[in-house]
Amino acid sequence: MSQKIINTDDLAFLLYEMLDIERFTQFPRYEDHSRDTFDAAIELALKVGAETFAPHNHLCDADEPRFENGKVVIRKEVSEALAVLRDTGLMAASQDYERGGMQLPSVVAQTCIGLIKGANVSTQAYAGLTIAACNLIMAHGTDEYKRRFAEPMAAGRFFGTMCLTEPHAGSSLGDIKTRAVPQDDGTYRISGNKIFISAGDHELSENIVHLVLAKLPDAPAGVKGISLFIVPKFLVNEDGSLGERNDVTLAGLIHKMGYRGTTSTMLNFGEKDGAVGYLVGEANMGLAQMFHMMNEARIGVGLGSVMLGYTGYLHALDYARDRRQGRPLKERNPETPMIRLVEHADVRRMLLAQKAFVEGGLSLCLYAATLIDEKKHSDDPLVREEAAGLLDLLTPIVKSWPSQFCLEANSLAIQVHGGYGYTREYPVEQFYRDNRLNPIHEGTHGIQGQDLLGRKVSMGGGRFYQSLLKQIRQTISECNRSSELSASSELLEEALGTLEGVTEALQAVKKDDPDRALANAYLYMECFGHVVVGWLWLRQAQTALRGLQNGGERPKAFYEGKIKACEYFVRYELPKPLALANVLRDADRTTLDMSDECF
Amino acid sequence: MSQKIINTDDLAFLLYEMLDIERFTQFPRYEDHSRDTFDAAIELALKVGAETFAPHNHLCDADEPRFENGKVVIRKEVSEALAVLRDTGLMAASQDYERGGMQLPSVVAQTCIGLIKGANVSTQAYAGLTIAACNLIMAHGTDEYKRRFAEPMAAGRFFGTMCLTEPHAGSSLGDIKTRAVPQDDGTYRISGNKIFISAGDHELSENIVHLVLAKLPDAPAGVKGISLFIVPKFLVNEDGSLGERNDVTLAGLIHKMGYRGTTSTMLNFGEKDGAVGYLVGEANMGLAQMFHMMNEARIGVGLGSVMLGYTGYLHALDYARDRRQGRPLKERNPETPMIRLVEHADVRRMLLAQKAFVEGGLSLCLYAATLIDEKKHSDDPLVREEAAGLLDLLTPIVKSWPSQFCLEANSLAIQVHGGYGYTREYPVEQFYRDNRLNPIHEGTHGIQGQDLLGRKVSMGGGRFYQSLLKQIRQTISECNRSSELSASSELLEEALGTLEGVTEALQAVKKDDPDRALANAYLYMECFGHVVVGWLWLRQAQTALRGLQNGGERPKAFYEGKIKACEYFVRYELPKPLALANVLRDADRTTLDMSDECF
Repeated sequence: MSQKIINTDDLAFLLYEMLDIERFTQFPRYEDHSRDTFDAAIELALKVGAETFAPHNHLCDADEPRFENGKVVIRKEVSEALAVLRDTGLMAASQDYERGGMQLPSVVAQTCIGLIKGANVSTQAYAGLTIAACNLIMAHGTDEYKRRFAEPMAAGRFFGTMCLTEPHAGSSLGDIKTRAVPQDDGTYRISGNKIFISAGDHELSENIVHLVLAKLPDAPAGVKGISLFIVPKFLVNEDGSLGERNDVTLAGLIHKMGYRGTTSTMLNFGEKDGAVGYLVGEANMGLAQMFHMMNEARIGVGLGSVMLGYTGYLHALDYARDRRQGRPLKERNPETPMIRLVEHADVRRMLLAQKAFVEGGLSLCLYAATLIDEKKHSDDPLVREEAAGLLDLLTPIVKSWPSQFCLEANSLAIQVHGGYGYTREYPVEQFYRDNRLNPIHEGTHGIQGQDLLGRKVSMGGGRFYQSLLKQIRQTISECNRSSELSASSELLEEALGTLEGVTEALQAVKKDDPDRALANAYLYMECFGHVVVGWLWLRQAQTALRGLQNGGERPKAFYEGKIKACEYFVRYELPKPLALANVLRDADRTTLDMSDECF
Repeated sequence: MSQKIINTDDLAFLLYEMLDIERFTQFPRYEDHSRDTFDAAIELALKVGAETFAPHNHLCDADEPRFENGKVVIRKEVSEALAVLRDTGLMAASQDYERGGMQLPSVVAQTCIGLIKGANVSTQAYAGLTIAACNLIMAHGTDEYKRRFAEPMAAGRFFGTMCLTEPHAGSSLGDIKTRAVPQDDGTYRISGNKIFISAGDHELSENIVHLVLAKLPDAPAGVKGISLFIVPKFLVNEDGSLGERNDVTLAGLIHKMGYRGTTSTMLNFGEKDGAVGYLVGEANMGLAQMFHMMNEARIGVGLGSVMLGYTGYLHALDYARDRRQGRPLKERNPETPMIRLVEHADVRRMLLAQKAFVEGGLSLCLYAATLIDEKKHSDDPLVREEAAGLLDLLTPIVKSWPSQFCLEANSLAIQVHGGYGYTREYPVEQFYRDNRLNPIHEGTHGIQGQDLLGRKVSMGGGRFYQSLLKQIRQTISECNRSSELSASSELLEEALGTLEGVTEALQAVKKDDPDRALANAYLYMECFGHVVVGWLWLRQAQTALRGLQNGGERPKAFYEGKIKACEYFVRYELPKPLALANVLRDADRTTLDMSDECF
């Protein structure tokens, strides 16, 4: 199988050597599993990705969904691929056996989804949204709702959406205007307008289950008055058969820069009598419930961004190994053959940067996925609590770090290709356009920075932040004793000290002046993210060194490459955001003090 | 006239207050000119840009040139706009009066072209390439070639191209294979394949004059064997009338990520008997001659990148002033009205970054344009020599700094727009796609870095580099004495000292090991570019302070904004590339030592 989605050595290295996910087979939930069953699922996903999803990735970019005769027309390859995903069971990879799932650990399920994303992020999105919406109903819905809505979603018969944004309310969700009026039969009538609803309408599934945020008539203002509703495109009868069309209308399609295969819609709820909706859980608890989905969605965004960066990197690497251009600087004879691009130091710099970003990003996302497993299924309540806290703390990083740096990797993949990279005849430009969405949706960089510095770092009196620091210090102290790794670990140690100082200073400012403390929250998040990824790179180097010393499963050059990439990251990338430590430590007021009329 | 191409206060500030271009009216060539004639041309260009070029910018992106029945079909708005450009005389803005031009200083002509670029970079390219090709023939062609080819180009009847790249030879121009065989009549027969030829075929002009790099049969290998030829699409008779079709065939169109309105072609020369070509200047001097055009083209790329960033910034600013979202962090009452985006510190950070990049980039390009005027038309030979040297030194910076940071500005403009920014219903995503070409064409970042560190810094024994440093130190020492500016000038002084140390260290390494010294040349160029732009920002702040103190022509808030943006640049942006000073000073070998199999 020829594929440019993943380096399978890298994936096995991260999962088994570094993160040791075989330990999850000790958890009662996963006791039937083994490394073999994990590998079988991963190999299947890679095969489905490479053979079924990748081939139409460019086609759906060039020939995006159209609105014709009141319907959304999508190329047939999309429904064919989604049918394969459903029939192989991959859509329900992490669901319970009793609900038709494979009951795989999150980290394996995420890996499988990631491979599909790397092959074709737009087609995968229909499935990904469905899985997330299904999980939300499984977590908060009644048994009846699970049976009527979630099970057909897990089976891939119904697809799902999340309907949050309204034309006037994006990040400011507390300001939504969609209304839900209670009816005598216990249902609600929903009316309002939603925008940027991915997969909001199509003919790919028997039904579409919209999860809609709306407000009850007597709801408190702001985020405390948001409730969550199931609003199906077609009503579902008691016996599971489809009833009549609900009052949900496609108002139009939005045309995006990339990610074009995923249709983005404007939906009107209740143009006639109000759309029938079913309240999920308690009234006014919608935001918290949606965050159950949103946090998963944020990790999904990070992983999608990584996989777009990863496939771009593999394409660039392949091109750089093949294409000949120029000669070494010291070669003065123009009649010698041209050398391969990969032999130029500047091209290697761009490849190393991509490697550092995408393999670093992948280690971050997979590490986060192991925290989901520990949080949900460890039998030790302390492990569960610790994992839940670390996951909460790291979610803004997992969402935004890859969105920024794996997008940068996509830009570098174009640059390695030169003029060819800028053409639609080569795939790297599409990866770049697709990836540009990721810093925006599911909470922009600005929102994530505020979440990290404003809430997460100080959550639980700062204990999860301290716990993360302790882990990082532990790795540093182990590596400081290694002659091969100490140069890198010392650079990380210095950066960690800087981050600690900055955090303390900003927490002090926050008490009196939160606006000032958070003014540079995005820049703080860049530093924090680089320290976390630097730590994971050091762990990768440490694991690779062990592999070299103990004759690990992978080639020597692979392990050496990991150590080199760690060196690259801590030397060439880590210093950049940390160069703003003074600005952060002083809670610099430049951006606060700039008045509108001075622009 | 409503336009989002330029802040006219900013333009007047840079041209008259900071760069004092009125001094050029003292040059004999420009003695008929005055600030009034400069302003008239600039106002005309802005009007033509806003009214004639901007309205079809999005149309030509959505409906790009097509290859139909052997011809390139381009929307009619393009030829209409180019006719206006020709008829207003703007195409020949800098040409001699006697050749039908306005004989305007380069800095004014570049400003005019820049305004058209900001309105519609793709349509402008047809004119821009023509002007550059025309200038090249004017500089190196015989009088007959000037009459037969260049004058109809200056008049906008013929358009021009530059045909350098071949499928196997992009950056490595010495490896081109196109051949030129001398004929008894003094002409040549050209045969070979060229790729990425912008405006390579169309029906917009009576004729297309290709400037083609090719090799004579006995030419030396490499760049020393390249000659330059005029190869018209239609032969031109002695009397200027058009003759038969030359043997130049359109082999196909290339489809780009952006810049779609400018058709990009593959051309075959000499599929039948060889295309008729005319040698320009001496044989084997083609590269040097083409660099006459290329250096102008590189400044043009920088300016185009600035103008794309600039229009994106003005769109983002407008949106941020209009769109309401969220509340101040300390506001706990969700029933208060939402505030405007521009009131959020993180949005102001993104707007300040854009302002710093695009106004900084504009000051860089306009400063470079004044050097062209001094170099060509000063009556003091010392001034001419100094200006020529500084321009050579700065050309790689002028080309690449805006290509990188004004592209980043376009990304920030998208981010300010949130989800809307990612849609093709708003213009900022197109600016971003258009601008992504600029780090590639006319020499990639990697090539520019090698040019700067490998040649330009040490050119003339380093005297132009020293001369630039002296100017920067002069500004710093003036500003160090000002209570309003000293904080900024001290930060620049520190960065300048770092750059000097790095430069010395790398020059020492270069003597023995040029490959090692140049391995990180791109990162060196980032530092150099930031110091140069930091200097120009300090000059802007200095000029603004003078304006504030002496009651200058512009509003107080405008001048204050300049001082704030300077502070932002030196505090928030300048430190980032300089954080790699150690890597550079040590001539770090990480990228050199990474072997292919370790990726």
